[in-house]
Amino acid sequence: MNSGRILLAHGGGGVLMHRLITERIVPKLGNPALAPLLDSAILNISKTRLALTTDSFVVKPIFFPGGDIGRLAVCGTINDLAAVGAVPRFLTLALILEEGLPLEVLDRVLDGIAAAASEADVIVATGDTKVVERGAADGMYINTAGIGEVPAGRNLSPKNIQPGDVVLTTGTLGDHGIAVMSRREGIEFTTELVSDVAPLASVMEAMMAAAPSVRCLRDPTRGGAAMTLGDFARESGTAVWIEEARVPIRPEVAGACEMLGIDPLYVASEGKYLVVCPGDESEAALAALRSHPLGRHAARIGEVRAAPAGKLVLSTRIGGRRLVEMPHGEMLPRIC
Amino acid sequence: MNSGRILLAHGGGGVLMHRLITERIVPKLGNPALAPLLDSAILNISKTRLALTTDSFVVKPIFFPGGDIGRLAVCGTINDLAAVGAVPRFLTLALILEEGLPLEVLDRVLDGIAAAASEADVIVATGDTKVVERGAADGMYINTAGIGEVPAGRNLSPKNIQPGDVVLTTGTLGDHGIAVMSRREGIEFTTELVSDVAPLASVMEAMMAAAPSVRCLRDPTRGGAAMTLGDFARESGTAVWIEEARVPIRPEVAGACEMLGIDPLYVASEGKYLVVCPGDESEAALAALRSHPLGRHAARIGEVRAAPAGKLVLSTRIGGRRLVEMPHGEMLPRIC
Repeated sequence: MNSGRILLAHGGGGVLMHRLITERIVPKLGNPALAPLLDSAILNISKTRLALTTDSFVVKPIFFPGGDIGRLAVCGTINDLAAVGAVPRFLTLALILEEGLPLEVLDRVLDGIAAAASEADVIVATGDTKVVERGAADGMYINTAGIGEVPAGRNLSPKNIQPGDVVLTTGTLGDHGIAVMSRREGIEFTTELVSDVAPLASVMEAMMAAAPSVRCLRDPTRGGAAMTLGDFARESGTAVWIEEARVPIRPEVAGACEMLGIDPLYVASEGKYLVVCPGDESEAALAALRSHPLGRHAARIGEVRAAPAGKLVLSTRIGGRRLVEMPHGEMLPRIC
Repeated sequence: MNSGRILLAHGGGGVLMHRLITERIVPKLGNPALAPLLDSAILNISKTRLALTTDSFVVKPIFFPGGDIGRLAVCGTINDLAAVGAVPRFLTLALILEEGLPLEVLDRVLDGIAAAASEADVIVATGDTKVVERGAADGMYINTAGIGEVPAGRNLSPKNIQPGDVVLTTGTLGDHGIAVMSRREGIEFTTELVSDVAPLASVMEAMMAAAPSVRCLRDPTRGGAAMTLGDFARESGTAVWIEEARVPIRPEVAGACEMLGIDPLYVASEGKYLVVCPGDESEAALAALRSHPLGRHAARIGEVRAAPAGKLVLSTRIGGRRLVEMPHGEMLPRIC
């Protein structure tokens, strides 16, 4: 490249863009689908029931303890596919780069993307690169869309939830949001905490093998567990009751939340699922989760009742009960 | 909504985001795939050979004569799918919105998206909404990914190009780039010109029905015809010879290019294909194109020879010949 930084010209459809893509991006992500650089990748799939998802990532800063925007983009999309029981297969990768971005930064992000894709056995099949002027994006934004194959008979949805079901988490909650905030300009603080960002498809498969009647699962990203569990209640018309004392929260997360004045239930995770399953499968699900490296801290955190319908109820440590409301707006801006 | 503008809180995963999506976005795009608002849409497809593409759109300004960023996002993705012979089926829609964006602007863009999707008979199956701070995006960026089904036996690729083939355009070139530039801050000029942005899947199908041996097609967006035809030559190892006098350019485009000091061959179109087909099918292809409303100005503009291998050659109006190089960088920044 002519300079060590992204130029507007890298987005112009000319020689520089061609070289950026063929010399810098494709070699990092290289695979048979991406190689021909056609307008569209041609994919051969084995099933005709597909899951399709998309997410843009605008996390700030783009590097944070335990990950970066690239790893986050791959994992976030994989986790949305696996949340409906799909086997993730292909990703798209669209970069919006800010003029002046050091190419070395792009390289590090591409490394994160390649590593996460390899870890999760998915292929980056096609992509796009745009460049905007200095100041018109914070370094970079990334969009990933994903395609997964849904096995026959698998139908995970909050609509399946019934009173008597139990609520599990695959691990500690809030690690990602607090890890990002610890590096946020203006409020940096010292912590040993790292983001939990990880691809969860293998966690989902391990659990489904042991507990095939799992009703639904979802990764509590923006809005945290409060939003996800509240959605479970609203979408099923049941009541989700959570016991505060059972929710696994790392001491570093609890401490930071106290300092920031926020409730850890509203803080994002990027490597955890909240799961609802029938009571008689919950022990099998927990055992399977705990024997997976990404599910060691799995726990039963609550149960589903009939009332109050559509509500999320928290039994507090001091013996009280309170309704947990959806967050109104932004608790922690731009954590993904 | 609480105000007439996008707030950071609209991106936070809480009540405001939920309402933005369910009350404002889904009703405009409403369809059975989008309705359940799961993490991933579940799609039933009929073929197991798929085309997958993605593009981000950062066009500036977001409204331009003849279209807007929403229509552009839908059409650009459809056209990339149809360029490999796929029948476009499903789109994803990811919005990155700038804090302060008037909701009325979002509504107009969503209208453009809905209209273009309906025109092209594709479904917006899933989406994502992020909000960044004032100044961290130019109003909005959009990413769309698309899935299409590839009919058996269809294998469009520049690798199929052979000496003796002819080169067609489905219409006038450069309309989109110049229409956008006419509204670009700092260089506005008056023109009757409108962007050609349009979904081209039906144009491709009409042509393929009449000329089943078409080798390849591609929409000359960033980098214009010079880039696309140059890619055809490079990827096939043939020589693409174009006759300048045969290339249909509107007088408004020619005039603006002269004023701006750019070559119309480098200016983007968003509603045209450049096509290579065997000589014996070229008349049938042209007739089919000209009877389609989006192909009325289709023309034969050149031919494929063996030498100079990998090069694009222009026979000029005054009888000369010159090699057309790939543009180095940005001719017209952010036209898509």
